[in-house]
Amino acid sequence: MTPSDPSNELKRMASSITTTRIETLADGVFAIVLTLLAFDLDLRVPSQDVVNQIGLAGALANLAPNFIAYLVTFVILGVLWVGHHNQFFYIKRADRTLLWINLLFMMCVALLPFSAGLLSRYGQDRVSVIIYNINLILAGLVLYVHWWYATRDSHLLNHPIDEKIRKIVNRRILTPPAWYLVAILASLIFIQASIAIDVFVPILYILPSGIDHFLHHG
Amino acid sequence: MTPSDPSNELKRMASSITTTRIETLADGVFAIVLTLLAFDLDLRVPSQDVVNQIGLAGALANLAPNFIAYLVTFVILGVLWVGHHNQFFYIKRADRTLLWINLLFMMCVALLPFSAGLLSRYGQDRVSVIIYNINLILAGLVLYVHWWYATRDSHLLNHPIDEKIRKIVNRRILTPPAWYLVAILASLIFIQASIAIDVFVPILYILPSGIDHFLHHG
Amino acid sequence: MTPSDPSNELKRMASSITTTRIETLADGVFAIVLTLLAFDLDLRVPSQDVVNQIGLAGALANLAPNFIAYLVTFVILGVLWVGHHNQFFYIKRADRTLLWINLLFMMCVALLPFSAGLLSRYGQDRVSVIIYNINLILAGLVLYVHWWYATRDSHLLNHPIDEKIRKIVNRRILTPPAWYLVAILASLIFIQASIAIDVFVPILYILPSGIDHFLHHG
Amino acid sequence: MTPSDPSNELKRMASSITTTRIETLADGVFAIVLTLLAFDLDLRVPSQDVVNQIGLAGALANLAPNFIAYLVTFVILGVLWVGHHNQFFYIKRADRTLLWINLLFMMCVALLPFSAGLLSRYGQDRVSVIIYNINLILAGLVLYVHWWYATRDSHLLNHPIDEKIRKIVNRRILTPPAWYLVAILASLIFIQASIAIDVFVPILYILPSGIDHFLHHG
Repeated sequence: MTPSDPSNELKRMASSITTTRIETLADGVFAIVLTLLAFDLDLRVPSQDVVNQIGLAGALANLAPNFIAYLVTFVILGVLWVGHHNQFFYIKRADRTLLWINLLFMMCVALLPFSAGLLSRYGQDRVSVIIYNINLILAGLVLYVHWWYATRDSHLLNHPIDEKIRKIVNRRILTPPAWYLVAILASLIFIQASIAIDVFVPILYILPSGIDHFLHHG
Repeated sequence: MTPSDPSNELKRMASSITTTRIETLADGVFAIVLTLLAFDLDLRVPSQDVVNQIGLAGALANLAPNFIAYLVTFVILGVLWVGHHNQFFYIKRADRTLLWINLLFMMCVALLPFSAGLLSRYGQDRVSVIIYNINLILAGLVLYVHWWYATRDSHLLNHPIDEKIRKIVNRRILTPPAWYLVAILASLIFIQASIAIDVFVPILYILPSGIDHFLHHG
Repeated sequence: MTPSDPSNELKRMASSITTTRIETLADGVFAIVLTLLAFDLDLRVPSQDVVNQIGLAGALANLAPNFIAYLVTFVILGVLWVGHHNQFFYIKRADRTLLWINLLFMMCVALLPFSAGLLSRYGQDRVSVIIYNINLILAGLVLYVHWWYATRDSHLLNHPIDEKIRKIVNRRILTPPAWYLVAILASLIFIQASIAIDVFVPILYILPSGIDHFLHHG
Repeated sequence: MTPSDPSNELKRMASSITTTRIETLADGVFAIVLTLLAFDLDLRVPSQDVVNQIGLAGALANLAPNFIAYLVTFVILGVLWVGHHNQFFYIKRADRTLLWINLLFMMCVALLPFSAGLLSRYGQDRVSVIIYNINLILAGLVLYVHWWYATRDSHLLNHPIDEKIRKIVNRRILTPPAWYLVAILASLIFIQASIAIDVFVPILYILPSGIDHFLHHG
């Protein structure tokens, strides 16, 4: 390549960006979403009026559903962050397309407090259950596209990836969105079943036993 | 250079700062702006009053314009972030002037949610269209000055840059501000045309075909 | 290890993550919590109404308890940040469990402004004192579990750690939670004693003499 | 040093922390403060009521003082960020004391939007002018203590620093706080003089000519 060939040079620029800034941006977005989640879910200091009527303990007890929504969404965000994080063990370069897939992923993450707030306030309404699960499905699918695009050939990787690993990770990424689709279908019949799925799927993902099982018998 | 010459030493300090912290600050500002954008554009959980009147589905349908404004501004912020990001493929050192150009760029980015909020709430008013487009033009021009200043000579670069590449990138950076100027002029006749330009310019920028065309035939 | 053994490869992926992104996420969460703390503790510009009644100086004097709560919580957050920071002098690798311990720590940190706001507004109520101290105890215990898990064997460390150092650090981490437990017990008798403990424990931790004493005679 | 000497090991841990995380935390705090400044200074989309009365252009014209306060505070934050940034050209290691000086600096920075909001809303009241300038003086003094502590001996530096450079930088750091003290004294006689000083001091600091003059004749 000669320095006087601008199109090659531009191509090289576009395809040899390191992933550092993507990861910094993602960590920033996750840090803000994790921190502002309490606020978005109305987990705020009760007003004097409420405390006068039912006491501080009572006012805090009323926040219990918000606190549960906070815990569940925090864990889901954690699963997404760990998933995004782990992909960069393999992905070592970025191109323009990968930057935009990441921005799309950031958008899904940044909208999650809104969807969670909707579910926390109008959980008895099917519409909020469906929107919340669509948001989760989109986040999962974008994470899958991210993995698929980056590992499809080896130009963004340090060394070629084993096809078996690719498939195991594929399955791991696509399992939660599949469950969230079940949750949407379940909500058409019985909303409580849908919410139960949303609570239990992320829990399955933090249990290390699940992964170990995969690793030892997968 | 002897260590006892403080003016040389100070000059060296001022001109051999790495770009790491500029990029960290920029990523932080972008992460916050991207995350708080939903809030700034009134994309919030509808209140009980509104839901009682028109139902949750209706209340969410009313948020559709806010959601479109969110998508468009998110993409514009993405274009600016990718543009800023790519410049640092060449720029490897910073001096005091570059720090301040970056701070000015951060200011334009930080004000964008305000301008977008203005457009989203008062989109039928010419004033809001003009302010939104001025904000976008300023952001683009500062990004251009950033590129111009850093590549003007090679003291902030790792190796001299090819003049053809400089010009191709110049054109790429200056195209959106030129369109936003057209949008302002269009708003004087027909506001809808102006908004159509604002929606389509960033879309042109994510399509990879556009760049490939550039690279193959440019 | 052959590249065709996916379970080994996945295990290696899971256990050789660098700690960079954990630290970036943690610094992001701390930066946001430290910055939004003033807002959460109602340390805001007084409204015109209040200023008309009692003057600006009077209105600001009314904010004195909020300012003290701000100072104390800022220092506590500082102690937690420094503690987390210092652990990564030894910890050089992360696995899935460490990621989740960190996310749990982030949760405790992100909830602290809520607990501090509760204490600042309803400090005369035992419930708020207990919740604030439970939050601090949980943050301290998670930090201890973090240290315990990472140093338990040497797979996340660069070199094996001396057992004496482990124990000194253990004691350092567990001392504040122990005091906060005393604060809870004290609150059952006399709330002011409880608050006095909460104010003085972090102060003990910034005094360098305390550490020096430890280092020279410990 | 033997590995079995825990006090030496702990001392080494405390004094050989790299400065990366301090800089990440600082950049995070600055990014958030710069981004939320518009919000803190009431630079928000005007309400429908106000627009109905005086039109959108009129409502935006009313925001002019807020916008000027935003510009001035943004520039002051920029000066502080650049100053903090440049110190780490020399400072390459951190100890516990430096961590706490940094946290104190973060506190001054995080409180600046509050002080600026106070000045922007109650600028005709001497109290707000004094508080704003005290905040700026404290930020400057902490930055000075940071420089003084880190360069006092060479244990946090890469190589010993020239005494003349130390003194030039000392003078540079201490000049703005001196001016802000003058601004406080001026406010006792004539508030407008005080505000004029606050506007012009940061402007002097971005003009590169000022530094060049220093470097060529200093």
